[in-house]
Amino acid sequence: MLEKKKIPKSAISRLSLYLREVTRLGKDGKDKVSSIELGDLTGLTDAQVRKDFSYFGQFGISGAGYDIPKLKDALREILGKDKLWPIVLVGCGNIGSALLRYPGFKNQGFIIKEAFDIDQKKIGRRYGDVVVKDIEDIRDIERDESIEIAIIAVPADSAQNVADMLIRYDARCILNFAPVILKVNNGVTVSNMDLSTELENFSFILTSLKNQ
Amino acid sequence: MLEKKKIPKSAISRLSLYLREVTRLGKDGKDKVSSIELGDLTGLTDAQVRKDFSYFGQFGISGAGYDIPKLKDALREILGKDKLWPIVLVGCGNIGSALLRYPGFKNQGFIIKEAFDIDQKKIGRRYGDVVVKDIEDIRDIERDESIEIAIIAVPADSAQNVADMLIRYDARCILNFAPVILKVNNGVTVSNMDLSTELENFSFILTSLKNQ
Repeated sequence: MLEKKKIPKSAISRLSLYLREVTRLGKDGKDKVSSIELGDLTGLTDAQVRKDFSYFGQFGISGAGYDIPKLKDALREILGKDKLWPIVLVGCGNIGSALLRYPGFKNQGFIIKEAFDIDQKKIGRRYGDVVVKDIEDIRDIERDESIEIAIIAVPADSAQNVADMLIRYDARCILNFAPVILKVNNGVTVSNMDLSTELENFSFILTSLKNQ
Repeated sequence: MLEKKKIPKSAISRLSLYLREVTRLGKDGKDKVSSIELGDLTGLTDAQVRKDFSYFGQFGISGAGYDIPKLKDALREILGKDKLWPIVLVGCGNIGSALLRYPGFKNQGFIIKEAFDIDQKKIGRRYGDVVVKDIEDIRDIERDESIEIAIIAVPADSAQNVADMLIRYDARCILNFAPVILKVNNGVTVSNMDLSTELENFSFILTSLKNQ
């Protein structure tokens, strides 16, 4: 078993990138990769690669290159990719329906199993195996097939209500597309994917440059 | 003119949230708001609100509440929202086409003016006023109507090439949906919106909890 120290979130994000490259290299028939190569492929320094791996013990002797199948298995285990994680989506507008149509999730170990909306025009629409349900029906989800990962893609003013409801149904991790900071208890992780806030950061930067 | 200190990016993101709430309060006919109210509305402490505003000088006397029209104007000026910012989008798959269909950009001061793809099936598709063009045609964009803000929504293995090309055409700010860390020169800002990395962070957290 891998020994785990307190790991910064940014290191986890880099492990995702390493896993993607290592998987690709494995498919190309390679069996060794050095920290330098892995750095080149991900845009990081080799020192950063070695440091990130040090959080998780040894994946091989760095000088001789890491063993690709072992590295891949270890990264998959760390990132919890030995199973298909079910996701519950709330909000099936532009963003939500794009997510429902996105074929890449499944390859990456995630699958939207349930989708909900409040809008009668959206309820009943089918995306592959998923039919959009009335948000009221969320209470019928089997509790043992729990809603650990949820995506919120509703307007800002209903996002907190939706989050509260999802947490009552055992959501532990929420990907939030609404432009609002959600209040959640300890033990619940929220990642924000807020397009307009990112864009406003850009307009701030460009305006500052022009005013210099 | 507002005096500007070195401002952390997280503060800019919060200014976006404040602006949204202040705009809403103004529409509701309110003319004063306290740091406590603004904190409640955004999920932040009143101390955080006051600290963020201190980066930009005074918006009013905190005890008596901030003057909403003045605060709104100041936030709009800081965030560069006195104009409509043109955006160039490269990649019109699931994510890109969802962005093209998203009606909210324009209200927020952004507009996708040009969209490009490499796929003959996608070239020529119309989304409102925007027709998807061949990526080769990017060279015909008027340089003075420059590509300051660009969105990359292409697969990981072509994202760096697209970024290099956009930067040659004066892109200064890139919103990147591809799961790869882009290498860019100083003076170019990249924000990553990487869904699968966020989800892998979740599966890591949930796996760690189960192994405890």
